Amino acid sequence: MLIDLSGTLHIDERAIPGSIEAVKRVLQSHSKSTTTTTTATTTTAGGGLQVRFVTNTSKESAASLRARLGRLGLPLPAEGETQMEDPVKIFSSLTAARTFLRSRSLRPLLLLSPNSLSDFADLDTRDPNAVVIGLAPDAFHYERLNEAFRLLVANPAAPLIAVNKSRYMKVADGFLSLGAGAFVSALEFSSGRTAHVIGKPSQGFFQTVLDDIGCTADEAVMIGDDLVDDVGGAQAAGLRGFLVRTGKFRAEDEHHEQIHPDGIFNDLAAAIDHILSFH
Amino acid sequence: MLIDLSGTLHIDERAIPGSIEAVKRVLQSHSKSTTTTTTATTTTAGGGLQVRFVTNTSKESAASLRARLGRLGLPLPAEGETQMEDPVKIFSSLTAARTFLRSRSLRPLLLLSPNSLSDFADLDTRDPNAVVIGLAPDAFHYERLNEAFRLLVANPAAPLIAVNKSRYMKVADGFLSLGAGAFVSALEFSSGRTAHVIGKPSQGFFQTVLDDIGCTADEAVMIGDDLVDDVGGAQAAGLRGFLVRTGKFRAEDEHHEQIHPDGIFNDLAAAIDHILSFH
Repeated sequence: MLIDLSGTLHIDERAIPGSIEAVKRVLQSHSKSTTTTTTATTTTAGGGLQVRFVTNTSKESAASLRARLGRLGLPLPAEGETQMEDPVKIFSSLTAARTFLRSRSLRPLLLLSPNSLSDFADLDTRDPNAVVIGLAPDAFHYERLNEAFRLLVANPAAPLIAVNKSRYMKVADGFLSLGAGAFVSALEFSSGRTAHVIGKPSQGFFQTVLDDIGCTADEAVMIGDDLVDDVGGAQAAGLRGFLVRTGKFRAEDEHHEQIHPDGIFNDLAAAIDHILSFH
Repeated sequence: MLIDLSGTLHIDERAIPGSIEAVKRVLQSHSKSTTTTTTATTTTAGGGLQVRFVTNTSKESAASLRARLGRLGLPLPAEGETQMEDPVKIFSSLTAARTFLRSRSLRPLLLLSPNSLSDFADLDTRDPNAVVIGLAPDAFHYERLNEAFRLLVANPAAPLIAVNKSRYMKVADGFLSLGAGAFVSALEFSSGRTAHVIGKPSQGFFQTVLDDIGCTADEAVMIGDDLVDDVGGAQAAGLRGFLVRTGKFRAEDEHHEQIHPDGIFNDLAAAIDHILSFH
């Protein structure tokens, strides 16, 4: 069970009502089923549902995400203390971006929020040869974006890496606000480059999560409030995609021309209860 | 003869060498030919070449443009003193945007540079129901762009109007810098709207200029440094398109997959001399 965070489990510091308890019901079903298996290593074969929080955040470090889940009542092991068989883990587009950069020894110009920079502290950023862009309102002004544009123009081999390409998000005041995707599009348009998108809806990101669980796409469901990134992305990767009517959900999402969710639920709790009723 | 301004006639306050003198040669040919005609109203029929400066500027008012041409040695009549038969006029995407807004009684949210606002001083901007975007580095920050995005989301009938959709421009330090098109793309991506582009390469803009001259597209040539907006736009409207190797010109423009200029010249003077040699 792949579950989005912002807009699906919580909005800012507020859990969406019933969501935390619903996730706990999933994990309880896991404890029950694993206690009935004979070996500790066959957690997925044991029938316990695995939960992966799959977030496109581009503004919060892994440590921040864990800290919030703890405050909301879902404490997770600290980084370095996670185990292969943990039934619940976080997959963040930011840490996936760091993995991408490190594997290619890239030196990034980082258009990222201050909070997220700790995920990139160990990377060399001198004489940059790549642009990484996430949601960074403080960096989204003409001078800084122009700096990134000029790097791309001067260095045709430099990749433009988008932590996500989100169109918009719902913020605490209830209004939609511009997502990082707007500024990714801006740089794509003027540089003529196509961004390498790390997070949802990229197929590679979903596959990394499936590989970690050790299941096939048709054994997994993605639940989220973003029709394109969560539902459409998951479906394109072979998973089922469930849409929730919370967060950035808009009424017209139920009648989209191309993307038809496998299920639409009022909230995460309703989606989870639906799944548990079949499990 | 349609001639681009920035990057073709001048760069900032500097005329491109030979360009002013070349335009004067065109106007002299005009004076000669009109003195040989018998009626003053048949200027185009008289064989004199007509010059229209056709600029996609989104940061300079009509008054600013005229003032600069004056400083460069090409004084034009002030607004209100122009005559139908003037052999040289300016067509600016900014004034075309104002005409568009007024004809539809729209109240714009203006993402425009301070200098250009004087072209819009007579418009009502309270309770806006349209977004107008031009090159406005001071307005290209998250908060102001988000304000425009929210207007578009809240009002599905509100048009997104781009004074131009320029990818980049060449500035005085010799580097390319982001054009307004980057930020038009940003708003298009997140709002799901397609911008109504006022300036080049829009067919309507070229047609307005041809109508003013009173000639057909195949009697006209557009000379500019922007392969897409000047050359491609003119060709799509049925004009010939000449590219100059000044301003934002880049070597790869000579080998573009889709757009093949009708002529490529080192600068405006060379392009004009080529035309005069056939006239």
